[in-house]
Amino acid sequence: MSRGWFPPPASYPGEPGGPVPRPAACPGSARPGPVPYRGPPLSCGGRAPPDAPAPPRTPGPCASPPRGRTLPWNAGYAEIINAEKSEFNEDQAACGKLCIRRCEFGPEEDQEWLTLCSEEFLTGHYWALFDGHGGPAAAILAANTLHSCLRRQLEAIGEGMVATQPPMHLSGRCVCPSDPQFVEEKGIRTEDLVIGALESAFQECDEVIGRELEAAGQVGGCTALVAVSLKGKLYVANAGDSRAILVRRDEVRPLSSEFTPESERQRIQQLAFVYPELLADEFTRLEFPRRLKGDDLGQKVLFRDHYMSGWSYKCVEKSDLKYPLIHGQGRQARLLGTLAVSRGLGDHQLRVLDTNIQLKPFLLSVPQVTVLDLDQLELQEEDVVVMATDGLWDVLSNEQVARLVQSFLPGNREDPHRFSELAQMLIHSTQGKDGSPTGEGQVSYDDVSVFVIPLYSQGQGSSGH
Amino acid sequence: MSRGWFPPPASYPGEPGGPVPRPAACPGSARPGPVPYRGPPLSCGGRAPPDAPAPPRTPGPCASPPRGRTLPWNAGYAEIINAEKSEFNEDQAACGKLCIRRCEFGPEEDQEWLTLCSEEFLTGHYWALFDGHGGPAAAILAANTLHSCLRRQLEAIGEGMVATQPPMHLSGRCVCPSDPQFVEEKGIRTEDLVIGALESAFQECDEVIGRELEAAGQVGGCTALVAVSLKGKLYVANAGDSRAILVRRDEVRPLSSEFTPESERQRIQQLAFVYPELLADEFTRLEFPRRLKGDDLGQKVLFRDHYMSGWSYKCVEKSDLKYPLIHGQGRQARLLGTLAVSRGLGDHQLRVLDTNIQLKPFLLSVPQVTVLDLDQLELQEEDVVVMATDGLWDVLSNEQVARLVQSFLPGNREDPHRFSELAQMLIHSTQGKDGSPTGEGQVSYDDVSVFVIPLYSQGQGSSGH
Repeated sequence: MSRGWFPPPASYPGEPGGPVPRPAACPGSARPGPVPYRGPPLSCGGRAPPDAPAPPRTPGPCASPPRGRTLPWNAGYAEIINAEKSEFNEDQAACGKLCIRRCEFGPEEDQEWLTLCSEEFLTGHYWALFDGHGGPAAAILAANTLHSCLRRQLEAIGEGMVATQPPMHLSGRCVCPSDPQFVEEKGIRTEDLVIGALESAFQECDEVIGRELEAAGQVGGCTALVAVSLKGKLYVANAGDSRAILVRRDEVRPLSSEFTPESERQRIQQLAFVYPELLADEFTRLEFPRRLKGDDLGQKVLFRDHYMSGWSYKCVEKSDLKYPLIHGQGRQARLLGTLAVSRGLGDHQLRVLDTNIQLKPFLLSVPQVTVLDLDQLELQEEDVVVMATDGLWDVLSNEQVARLVQSFLPGNREDPHRFSELAQMLIHSTQGKDGSPTGEGQVSYDDVSVFVIPLYSQGQGSSGH
Repeated sequence: MSRGWFPPPASYPGEPGGPVPRPAACPGSARPGPVPYRGPPLSCGGRAPPDAPAPPRTPGPCASPPRGRTLPWNAGYAEIINAEKSEFNEDQAACGKLCIRRCEFGPEEDQEWLTLCSEEFLTGHYWALFDGHGGPAAAILAANTLHSCLRRQLEAIGEGMVATQPPMHLSGRCVCPSDPQFVEEKGIRTEDLVIGALESAFQECDEVIGRELEAAGQVGGCTALVAVSLKGKLYVANAGDSRAILVRRDEVRPLSSEFTPESERQRIQQLAFVYPELLADEFTRLEFPRRLKGDDLGQKVLFRDHYMSGWSYKCVEKSDLKYPLIHGQGRQARLLGTLAVSRGLGDHQLRVLDTNIQLKPFLLSVPQVTVLDLDQLELQEEDVVVMATDGLWDVLSNEQVARLVQSFLPGNREDPHRFSELAQMLIHSTQGKDGSPTGEGQVSYDDVSVFVIPLYSQGQGSSGH
């Protein structure tokens, strides 16, 4: 396991202690070339030189890192390039060790400055999947950048993370004697700082992607699913429709939930209610079971507005005949007829076809974070986290994946590559081939990427450093 | 059990088929007198004549309906007037039979009109608790009005409620042959119509209260917790900090969750982010563990903004020293320093003391609705729903209430008044008296009202009518 699994360090103006900012990110600098395409980062073991032409898209065999390269915690990884929808693999992945250095604050009168000592004082691990759309550029940038944003955010709160309870003041000086009592009454825990750091890192990364794509004249967006181990806890942060689940001998537990136009309907409709100009008179914010037609005018039809969980009837007016803000159901649901996810990174330039209507105000970059306390789990040897892009979950349920895990691992305890093989087997199960372990022949036409992260031994006793 | 438990029917302009609108609600009509105070509606069995002076507030004994008056499903009810905070009992209750008549639509060209047949075609039952603040007026109006709003909303969707699946068009005519398929794909069920009707009824009632209080020159607001039985299901709709739980032999299940400035922090902060003018430069939307002081300026302190579940640090600026939009924790948490709840009815005139800052934009009248499928519960004789205002839950946990229920009911099977006695015992348990069944001496200083609704037999076989 090495830092080498990360793409070369990404940096941008303002990152303390980072390398010199890339000219690409400097406002007013010469327009750089486009974000170079990167093949499957983990399986190819490198990225194409910036000037190399993009490799042709070959719906290829399942790919995994070479056997000599060990991922953090001996995790397994596999991917397959599937779809005809784009020339490139739009899935990207990253993983590695997260080395957090200690912050030291300047003198009291100069609180805004902090310096980073060279020594690490906390070590974590990081696994991430990014599912791109509109090209792979955003996913590549996210794979290059998000871990740096996160490290910086964690370093900025380092002092708070090692205390039993986060101090009210980061400098540790107690301005008010009852500060600890207030923090305790609010129930603020160390893990809330890590959650806050993940939330901030996603937003920062989103801003970087927006700047870099604009500077490069490129477009695109991606979902982001990240698992971070830190001080005996596993944090799963999700923005988009990838999914992570915990699989144990007798348990399957979702560690994330999907953010789609359907699952975030009320938030999205509410925004359109507050800022109707975002719809430019082209869309209706109301939801109907199907798109309405002239024949429906004056009829009483089922509808839902932003404040409703239930359904009601309304008399159809002319404005209801517009295209719905959210239309379709299940995998077909689309935001503004355009996008199947409602959270993610990038898409700053994305507009509805042939209009000036922007998607971004409706998209959130903030992830939802779930915390798994590994020290309290009484981990067993076959306990794993499975993280995968939507291509897997479109054809396999949580329970089907769990059964595959539970039937594969116990018989392969001696195989040091069993988690990698399990990841490959999960990929094969999406291809509907004869002999696929589920025997149900489901086929995924999307790119699919899978991490299998074993929790036993690595997860235990890691609470110190 | 009779309709008599409802206050006299409330009506207002626009209610189809209802009695003549009261002059009070007509814009421009003569200003009516204030909303008359109503003593405990269920225990006193009536309301004071409009001109009678408000009865003095006597922190009195626990009160229950007289034994001759049976509540729907033989439910038990008890209440106690406790607090010194106001002259009146600010809790109000209502329950009764909900008789829903059939709607008939006019000819096609006149879809907006419908007529109500005199015959009932659906019967439900209704139990409601309203916990007032700023005086009892809003709670009294809600107890007078909400069931009428709900009946009207249910009558408007009557045809959809008796179908196996709600029709896309209320008239039942299928404009598009694939309509049923779209409704099925969206997963729209009959219960979604009832949820929609409850949501609309709360909003309609809120508007009525706003109009009537303004016309009467009165102020105030109230929380609302409603249970409705209909076609074998129990719907629990909640806006505020009352609570309903299901208690069975081996199970305690919350049927509602509380809406307070703490539980709705992100929604409230988000609104202030979108409309900063709502805070009139007097408040900060950020949350801190305590109110900041001049000494904190320039320091890095813990904070949360609208998009954050976790906590982070920020450098304190002058604007952070303003009073926080949400301040305090637990029972002490207040919205704009004023209100302990974030959903409810009324409060249209409520402003922050000595300012023009309105509370209402931050308050929602929309309830959250939980559905309990009674036919699927395999009900047993001691299964009950306990509904109570916050005065009970401030001193007793769900589990403590469940233990009291589970220890009382089995020994009192022969007593026809056992549910009423149980409601009284729960009230007594909040008074910290010697011999209180919990023996832990907690004391509630708030008004407390409790319904105990037995589910067995009444709940079963009621799916037809």
